[in-house]
Amino acid sequence: MNEQLLFNLVDLAGTFAFAISGATAARRCNLDLFGILAIAFITACGGGIVRDLCIGAVPPAGLSDWRYLLTAVVAALLTVVAYRWVERLTYPVRLFDAMGLGLFAVYGAHKALLFGHNAEVAILLGMVTAIGGGMARDVLLARVSIVLQQEIYALAALAGAALAVLGEYLHWPAVWATWLPILFCFGLRFASLRYHWNLPRFGRERQA
Amino acid sequence: MNEQLLFNLVDLAGTFAFAISGATAARRCNLDLFGILAIAFITACGGGIVRDLCIGAVPPAGLSDWRYLLTAVVAALLTVVAYRWVERLTYPVRLFDAMGLGLFAVYGAHKALLFGHNAEVAILLGMVTAIGGGMARDVLLARVSIVLQQEIYALAALAGAALAVLGEYLHWPAVWATWLPILFCFGLRFASLRYHWNLPRFGRERQA
Amino acid sequence: MNEQLLFNLVDLAGTFAFAISGATAARRCNLDLFGILAIAFITACGGGIVRDLCIGAVPPAGLSDWRYLLTAVVAALLTVVAYRWVERLTYPVRLFDAMGLGLFAVYGAHKALLFGHNAEVAILLGMVTAIGGGMARDVLLARVSIVLQQEIYALAALAGAALAVLGEYLHWPAVWATWLPILFCFGLRFASLRYHWNLPRFGRERQA
Repeated sequence: MNEQLLFNLVDLAGTFAFAISGATAARRCNLDLFGILAIAFITACGGGIVRDLCIGAVPPAGLSDWRYLLTAVVAALLTVVAYRWVERLTYPVRLFDAMGLGLFAVYGAHKALLFGHNAEVAILLGMVTAIGGGMARDVLLARVSIVLQQEIYALAALAGAALAVLGEYLHWPAVWATWLPILFCFGLRFASLRYHWNLPRFGRERQA
Repeated sequence: MNEQLLFNLVDLAGTFAFAISGATAARRCNLDLFGILAIAFITACGGGIVRDLCIGAVPPAGLSDWRYLLTAVVAALLTVVAYRWVERLTYPVRLFDAMGLGLFAVYGAHKALLFGHNAEVAILLGMVTAIGGGMARDVLLARVSIVLQQEIYALAALAGAALAVLGEYLHWPAVWATWLPILFCFGLRFASLRYHWNLPRFGRERQA
Repeated sequence: MNEQLLFNLVDLAGTFAFAISGATAARRCNLDLFGILAIAFITACGGGIVRDLCIGAVPPAGLSDWRYLLTAVVAALLTVVAYRWVERLTYPVRLFDAMGLGLFAVYGAHKALLFGHNAEVAILLGMVTAIGGGMARDVLLARVSIVLQQEIYALAALAGAALAVLGEYLHWPAVWATWLPILFCFGLRFASLRYHWNLPRFGRERQA
């Protein structure tokens, strides 16, 4: 398969998975149709919008590229009209979500480098691209972000973005510099889901 | 009446109504004087600030134009010193709020087009101009945004912004392209308040 | 001591104190290690990032200068591995926090003026630099911001930023224009802590 086409497909599949997670959460909070659409869109595109604002890419691609909006709207409408079917999709949605996480992190890091920013900016904003939408979703639903609590999620995005920046600095061939970090982030995220890896917590020591 | 003057008056009346809604909500949450002022200002100007960041209009007009700050401060102080009076203002405040909704949506869409962005950006950011402040208010007060739950509000802003962009593309005369979308948004919002129109919800199916 | 060095030391001490407050709050909410790091960083750098976006300073210094990231990470790790020790630091942390508040407000106002913006923008964004990180921390932890409720905090930042802008317009000597507003903000904040000064609230009148 053409490589650019594959990249675009993974990008839209990730957008779709992120939007499903947003729409499902909004539906559970009893938001109306518009709220579900809005949360789905923000979950899918919020991270990229913050990244674009921080690197000076105006207007943000999430607002100007109709494919993202359309993908998010389709995902949200599916969640509304075919909820039982979407519920059965849990496994593929998690798969797409992990793929989207890797791809968003790597794409975000590359875009920041492309705009001439340094490695720290690229790594941080790669991670923000991947997890920012999920954090915005939880902020709008008035709850502490799952992103900051659950299995290894943000850390996988950080690792993917860091590996992408490393590959760029070491002049890896483009295919490697793109897909190796994506697969690494995807693998780390998926393994943490499967084997219930969690980062340590410290809150309980208070009661001790 | 001079048309530009009318536009400015509606703009400031909308700012005033938005600030009143912010100050009232902040007061109910028992914030102190400064918190009330801050929430009033953010409710009135937050949407426009996000729009300006996304279209590259730096610094945001909400921060650099003293009339918005002054209007928000006056509205907040009135809510503090004359609460009973403000409570009796519910009806005019709702009227101004609906007018502000339409005007902010249309003005936001026009400004995005003026900065050379496409129709999707203009429609989305027109809506953000109108509802962003209310969403920021609810995020800061740690509650799920009313904007995403109540009668037709965000949808009216979206319709107003879309109509404004359509008018621009069809080269309607300036007066029509400005006021027709404002009145359409205002009418839709006001009718939904009066007749309790709501968008469908789907959260309850969970219990079924 | 060299004056620039003193400025940098106070800047990093303030970043450290802000990060401690973020990490402590995140730990109490039972976030995992990554969540604690993220909240610490956002509390320390979030205000400056918003300021830089609003004045067009891309990329934001908080994302591109490794010293801020390092300081926040060290503060967060200390909060994790030496919590008892950090708890005993309450007093110095409050001291640093008040110093950071003044320095961030003054530095933010100066930077906005340097980028050619007007007095209103400089005063508002000076305050945002100082209190924005704390507000972001509370939003991410899904609670009404302490910044908008507790003793004189945001108001002290506002006063510091306003005094800095005044000094700039009156062409005070650089040392005065920098340190007088910092000390004024610090003193106001510290006195309000010591003597429990609070701004008036009005929420209770509802029950009356």
